[in-house]
Amino acid sequence: MKKTLTLAAGLLWAVHAAAITPNNEPIQPITPAKITDPAKVELGKKLFFDPRLSRSGFISCNSCHNLSMGGSDNLQTSIGHNWQQGPINSPTVLNASMNVAQFWDGRAADLKEQAAGPIANPGEMAFTHNLAVDTLRSIPQYREAFKNVYKVDKITIDEVTDAIAEFEKTLVTPNSRFDRWLMGDQKALSKAELDGYKLFKDIGCTACHNGPAVGGNSFQKMGLVEPYATANPALGVAGLTGQDADRFKFKVPTLRNVELTYPYFHDGAYWKLEEAVDVMARLQLGRQLSDNDIGLITAFLKTLTGDQPSHGLPILPPSTNDTPRPRPFE
Amino acid sequence: MKKTLTLAAGLLWAVHAAAITPNNEPIQPITPAKITDPAKVELGKKLFFDPRLSRSGFISCNSCHNLSMGGSDNLQTSIGHNWQQGPINSPTVLNASMNVAQFWDGRAADLKEQAAGPIANPGEMAFTHNLAVDTLRSIPQYREAFKNVYKVDKITIDEVTDAIAEFEKTLVTPNSRFDRWLMGDQKALSKAELDGYKLFKDIGCTACHNGPAVGGNSFQKMGLVEPYATANPALGVAGLTGQDADRFKFKVPTLRNVELTYPYFHDGAYWKLEEAVDVMARLQLGRQLSDNDIGLITAFLKTLTGDQPSHGLPILPPSTNDTPRPRPFE
Repeated sequence: MKKTLTLAAGLLWAVHAAAITPNNEPIQPITPAKITDPAKVELGKKLFFDPRLSRSGFISCNSCHNLSMGGSDNLQTSIGHNWQQGPINSPTVLNASMNVAQFWDGRAADLKEQAAGPIANPGEMAFTHNLAVDTLRSIPQYREAFKNVYKVDKITIDEVTDAIAEFEKTLVTPNSRFDRWLMGDQKALSKAELDGYKLFKDIGCTACHNGPAVGGNSFQKMGLVEPYATANPALGVAGLTGQDADRFKFKVPTLRNVELTYPYFHDGAYWKLEEAVDVMARLQLGRQLSDNDIGLITAFLKTLTGDQPSHGLPILPPSTNDTPRPRPFE
Repeated sequence: MKKTLTLAAGLLWAVHAAAITPNNEPIQPITPAKITDPAKVELGKKLFFDPRLSRSGFISCNSCHNLSMGGSDNLQTSIGHNWQQGPINSPTVLNASMNVAQFWDGRAADLKEQAAGPIANPGEMAFTHNLAVDTLRSIPQYREAFKNVYKVDKITIDEVTDAIAEFEKTLVTPNSRFDRWLMGDQKALSKAELDGYKLFKDIGCTACHNGPAVGGNSFQKMGLVEPYATANPALGVAGLTGQDADRFKFKVPTLRNVELTYPYFHDGAYWKLEEAVDVMARLQLGRQLSDNDIGLITAFLKTLTGDQPSHGLPILPPSTNDTPRPRPFE
């Protein structure tokens, strides 16, 4: 009798465990960052916050990927050097290490390659890699940190972007309520949130929004069933390939922390998550959702907000008499 | 015999104590901040970092008083909304609570009054107090924090600026090497630094640069002995009083952390501390210092860099569907 009960309990446990094991779901939990080289990460953090990597001395990586605001700037498109209006919505840096490639059109293979882009982009930080490196070389504390981490006497842009990327790899957001549910905490989600998740799967959102980042791992056409109307001229992957078939093909954005990363889509045209859900269902899946269903999916999406990276504000080493001066107004 | 020795030792100790007691010097050490209302300070910190207090959603208090960079922006004059060039060098927020008044011309009595200025200044954050308050009211976590701290159901600009000021009062920088020397650590300064300090006193710098903030406690004419040549049109106190006698009268800036708060003077015209020392000695004191003496005073000034405020980067509560949207490009 006792053995039977134990077996039954064991069977129940197995059923339960199977139900909650992350592998049974199209979304997997986020693994906390493992920092193997803290000195490199600390150096990368300083660089991420250092506006001296821009021509003006005013814009840092954190300006448009603000770690106080979900790793984004919460603007339709970003503000660049001389208040230039950026061409596209700034994607969140949170969990960006899980992306199949970087930028909306995937033109950078990884975070290291990405980090080099904005520094030298005339519409963003408007600097040059040479001047950025000259700036860092003029500051003894930076020279020492690069020597310590990379064993180099002469800093190059290669180490600069590598350190920034290493810092960015730590910017993951584990422990969302949804992940706690995935890991077996049945009380982590309300019924409405769970209903929203089921609906999210049932109507096919998980075809693209899956994996630990709930997206970021494929490219898809924006406006698959119905065309997307926008004043934004961005072409997506077609801008790289010149192929008409790639027009409006963009990297599927992560939905992790989507509550924090408004406004939505590559043009930042939608500020309300409910509207974004409605547009996606219609344009990508040919579904007209009821307000109630939109509310359920939105409730689920808000459970994807994880622990935000906890960082002390870095204290940057001061410039010296040899440091190139910022030129904000030239 | 034993008593005599004790008396002698006691006398020696008294002499020694008198020599090191801060009151014997024109500069006093900085007292660490005592935080009596941590919830208010935490709220103020969030507001200090929140760019939603600006019209663009891009500029926060920290943009021009960057706590990673000595509480300043290290620019000649600041960058405001739409990349407008500011009229004057951004003074450090570090130890600003010790200032006799705020702004270069002292037009704000205290930090609370000061904090209201940039938010509504069309050349800075370019917002209105009403819109700033509407923004905060639309965000439940802010409503809750203000209710918790101020016992109010309806946020007004009064609580907003009060919380920012309370946070700013914590931004003091104790424990500089100079302060450790003041407190009796004879090894805290090198001979050159000590010689520089003696020179600083001997030639009369401490007439204005005295007290715990090494300045900040009086107004003086810029160009007392010899006129100051600048393209910057700022009039100083005369801009408020209309009195010709107040022309070029500015608040004496603190020299705490002066190593970090380049470029120098109200027009930010001098990037090198050595040059600033030279100009001050000539224009204010009628002294032409040798390069060696300039080097000594500069060495002393660099001992005034204290412990920078240690803060975790705040995580800001997200906007809601009711939050007024940023208007960076309108």
